[in-house]
Amino acid sequence: MKPNISDGSDRKVIFFHAPQSRSGGTLALLEELSADYELHLLDFKKGEQRQPAYLAINPMGKVPAILHRDVLVAEQPAVFLYLAELYPEARLAPLIGDPRRGPYLRWLVYYGSSFEPAVVDRSQKREPAPPMTSPYGTWDDVLNTIHAQLARGPYLLGDRFTAADVLWGIALHWTTLFNLVPETPDIRAYIERVIMRPAMQRAAARDAEFVAQQAA
Amino acid sequence: MKPNISDGSDRKVIFFHAPQSRSGGTLALLEELSADYELHLLDFKKGEQRQPAYLAINPMGKVPAILHRDVLVAEQPAVFLYLAELYPEARLAPLIGDPRRGPYLRWLVYYGSSFEPAVVDRSQKREPAPPMTSPYGTWDDVLNTIHAQLARGPYLLGDRFTAADVLWGIALHWTTLFNLVPETPDIRAYIERVIMRPAMQRAAARDAEFVAQQAA
Repeated sequence: MKPNISDGSDRKVIFFHAPQSRSGGTLALLEELSADYELHLLDFKKGEQRQPAYLAINPMGKVPAILHRDVLVAEQPAVFLYLAELYPEARLAPLIGDPRRGPYLRWLVYYGSSFEPAVVDRSQKREPAPPMTSPYGTWDDVLNTIHAQLARGPYLLGDRFTAADVLWGIALHWTTLFNLVPETPDIRAYIERVIMRPAMQRAAARDAEFVAQQAA
Repeated sequence: MKPNISDGSDRKVIFFHAPQSRSGGTLALLEELSADYELHLLDFKKGEQRQPAYLAINPMGKVPAILHRDVLVAEQPAVFLYLAELYPEARLAPLIGDPRRGPYLRWLVYYGSSFEPAVVDRSQKREPAPPMTSPYGTWDDVLNTIHAQLARGPYLLGDRFTAADVLWGIALHWTTLFNLVPETPDIRAYIERVIMRPAMQRAAARDAEFVAQQAA
């Protein structure tokens, strides 16, 4: 399953993706970056993410995952950080020294460390763990923090669109669709601003093709 | 509560810390980096992390948090990424292009996105969410992934000690103390290797002083 990448293209990545899963954001980011990538589709309905061939690549059996120069990068915010810096000409990652650098790191990590755990508890109708244990405090803390940041818009870090918006635009899109996050006008406008971008639309169309392909 | 940092020291950070909390790792990292920092202690027993003065700085009411040039960086893995690149001479962050760069990002993010949610469920004696929802799969997935990585030791990324070891050495130290993570010989040896470093010992001694200070 591990492909040979000695094709001379130094920035090419192998992208492990399952349609309509957490890896949709990475597909969109790769399109935004005009990145050179080779796609490996996993069929979750066949449980391919738990088969030895894939566990040998990512022992967590999760997507997204990428291989670059034969090295695994997994965990969505890490994949975003890595890809955005692999393609600096797309200017989706504020550089070291840019005042947006700290907020950029904060918002990418916040997605995995606070927002996802909160969404999981919410979707399972579980209470958060006690305050000193919960990684996100309360659900209201999470929503208020997002609202306060988006009120400064148009993008998460202000005027500049970054890889963090690819992650958050898509995350807010599906969590509002599933009625987990309330769709306020600010959030709706933000989602539209992100998902209507040509590269995002291209990624959504590709993902729909993959779904059809796996259903065939 | 927001201090004036116009003291000419460009790399100085304000560090918001509560003794014996999640921010202990950041205290250790600051010592490892020989960083210039101004400490602001929060007293959790008095609920200072939920008071308006602190919520105005970090709306999540969590530590660690830092201010650098008046800009907030929060979420532990983001704070680690930021500080390690602010002090590149300490060589605790593999640079872009280094083959350890991807694993470095992956392991810092993995801490917040997979390990912490797993530890929270474990400490609360809750089952993980269903496979497609759980950010970490199963508890065994998490432990096996850590064991497989540490078997390559001595450090998480091989021969080179990085900021990721500061985070993981301390995290494994307290989770084994609380009997959440089983203390295998590999894990014990790794913890010792990390926490016996002079800077780590210095941080532990400072933290003990802070505890005494708040108890007085």
